[in-house]
Amino acid sequence: MAECAQTGARAGLLHTPHGVVETPVFMPVGTQGSVKGLSPRDLIEQLDLRLLLANTYHLYLRPGPEVIERLGGLHQFMGWPRAILTDSGGYQVFSLSGLRKVTQEGVLFRSHLNGDAHLFTPESTVDVQLVFGSDILMALDECLEYPASHEAARESLDRTLGWARAAFRHYRQRIQERENCGALFPIVQGSVYGDLRRRCAAELRELDADGYAIGGLSVGEPRALSLEMVEATAPLLPRDRPRYMMGVGLPEELPEYVAHGVDMMDCVLPSRNARNGCLFTSQGRLIIKQARYKDDPRPIDESCPCYACRNFSRAYLRHLFQAGEILYASLATLHNLRRYLEVMRQIRQSILAGEFPAYLNATRARALEELPAEL
Amino acid sequence: MAECAQTGARAGLLHTPHGVVETPVFMPVGTQGSVKGLSPRDLIEQLDLRLLLANTYHLYLRPGPEVIERLGGLHQFMGWPRAILTDSGGYQVFSLSGLRKVTQEGVLFRSHLNGDAHLFTPESTVDVQLVFGSDILMALDECLEYPASHEAARESLDRTLGWARAAFRHYRQRIQERENCGALFPIVQGSVYGDLRRRCAAELRELDADGYAIGGLSVGEPRALSLEMVEATAPLLPRDRPRYMMGVGLPEELPEYVAHGVDMMDCVLPSRNARNGCLFTSQGRLIIKQARYKDDPRPIDESCPCYACRNFSRAYLRHLFQAGEILYASLATLHNLRRYLEVMRQIRQSILAGEFPAYLNATRARALEELPAEL
Repeated sequence: MAECAQTGARAGLLHTPHGVVETPVFMPVGTQGSVKGLSPRDLIEQLDLRLLLANTYHLYLRPGPEVIERLGGLHQFMGWPRAILTDSGGYQVFSLSGLRKVTQEGVLFRSHLNGDAHLFTPESTVDVQLVFGSDILMALDECLEYPASHEAARESLDRTLGWARAAFRHYRQRIQERENCGALFPIVQGSVYGDLRRRCAAELRELDADGYAIGGLSVGEPRALSLEMVEATAPLLPRDRPRYMMGVGLPEELPEYVAHGVDMMDCVLPSRNARNGCLFTSQGRLIIKQARYKDDPRPIDESCPCYACRNFSRAYLRHLFQAGEILYASLATLHNLRRYLEVMRQIRQSILAGEFPAYLNATRARALEELPAEL
Repeated sequence: MAECAQTGARAGLLHTPHGVVETPVFMPVGTQGSVKGLSPRDLIEQLDLRLLLANTYHLYLRPGPEVIERLGGLHQFMGWPRAILTDSGGYQVFSLSGLRKVTQEGVLFRSHLNGDAHLFTPESTVDVQLVFGSDILMALDECLEYPASHEAARESLDRTLGWARAAFRHYRQRIQERENCGALFPIVQGSVYGDLRRRCAAELRELDADGYAIGGLSVGEPRALSLEMVEATAPLLPRDRPRYMMGVGLPEELPEYVAHGVDMMDCVLPSRNARNGCLFTSQGRLIIKQARYKDDPRPIDESCPCYACRNFSRAYLRHLFQAGEILYASLATLHNLRRYLEVMRQIRQSILAGEFPAYLNATRARALEELPAEL
């Protein structure tokens, strides 16, 4: 719909079987089939959320694809009528599970829940996501730790490429047999090596997918390196397909990724930080447990229209946090997600208005001068 | 408004500074200034809740009366626009705090939070509740454990009577100086001794209070004894004032207390049981973690109109429970409270229609035949 003349930023529309999504978009994470503490009604009425992420690894282990299938698919199971993107399970296998063994075929691992052995293959993870009925599916990839040697990254990359091709072969066959299937995205890997990232992007491009993800970043490498890798990768991906940067970011980083041509992002940051007492506001970060908020009658953010900011004081939220009350988690998560979606809205508006560079500069200036003191 | 010809049941209206409450009424418990997992909006829009209970002991310790006063009182602090009843703090001092020492003056205790020493007197607990702005305040009483000897109960009773008189003396003075004060209720004690209960009721009656509570029951004594004590006490209380039975009960017990002339009840049961996986339905109790619900597509209760029952399956709720998801607590609590309020609504309707004895008998019959198997 619109492209920034000076940066790589784009604004568009993503059409899914469960509705239209305005891009660039940030996806809240509903790991176990629930965005922690928020009901579908909160997500729709309070946030007008269009797209969320659910984790294949977790849902595969519990409650399992059979249960979800029997209950009519993931949307019906969750009571979520809009779009769902499921990741491939690759990241969690490598970060959460116990002993695991990678082969050409896939990855054998032990459940972190009960130690049972399972095998994920590119084909099986496509099947699981088709059973879920995800609007966007992700191809199984291997997520390397950081740092990794160029050789290890290259070897892993070749495996990921093989898995991507296998996933697409299988997917293309399956969609002949099923109705209403979502779109499969492959994931660009290559660690922090520009040459590997470029090769991977070029090879995955040949799959002619409906969208492409950039994975294996935000795993401990310096932020500048993450952006460098996006810069190496994004221009090689098809211009008319969405680019999904996985696992990012902080509010001030969102426009940076958009500036590099990213259309989709996901992160547990807003929800997890909320529960841990760190709230994002238009004036910077606020740590709710601090004594200064004990009798502060102001809302978290004067400019925020969310239910939490319209009805409750910092003092009350701090009280709920200190008291370990469940309501704190719901209100704080609602607020942080509202903040993130507001940032994305502002980014998108500025792109459509041809003013994104100014918005980006304003964000950078604000991040520089953000003082933790007077909030 | 209506009285049952055969039993002691009554239906009426309780007028408070924050709205009218239909009696008999069940009050959900918002211990620390929040009904766990539910926002004020949920309570109003989903349950049309008119009155809830908050604990003076907890709120006095954290965040404290000064903070609440500075934030405009408890209603404003909580964002709860309807009625609040606060208990005196007596029960928690005796059940939660560490070392404590009872004197004629009051009770010295150590906070369960940090061990600090505090003194509760009949006067100070009235003042704290006036600062909170409660619609109904409770007078400080001494809660004996069960069992207690007649002598210990008598000695405790005399102290409680002295405290009640001191509380009312102080309260009557204070309400000359303040506007919009709530009503103070004294609490009938006397352990499981009918003679003590009757004497206490008669003496408290002389305080000419706006309502009376029956306390010190549901502390481990057999249910039959609790009802016996209510039967001994209620008829001695003024007919035109509400009777508040503290700390009860299970769904099938609610009509029993109403039959003995009780107009108000409170209990953590519906909310706590919800969080622990025990759901109350029109067909009996349901333990959500049971394997039989793993792929059960039905709502918790087919006849329940709550948000949880209208949108989610038992399978999903079970999944959320197993997964430790926050949303489970909110949905389950919402459902159980809806169930309790529905039972109260049915009780009240039957009294107004002159059909309460039939309702009571139907409840008794259903409780007898309740089979845990097919649900």
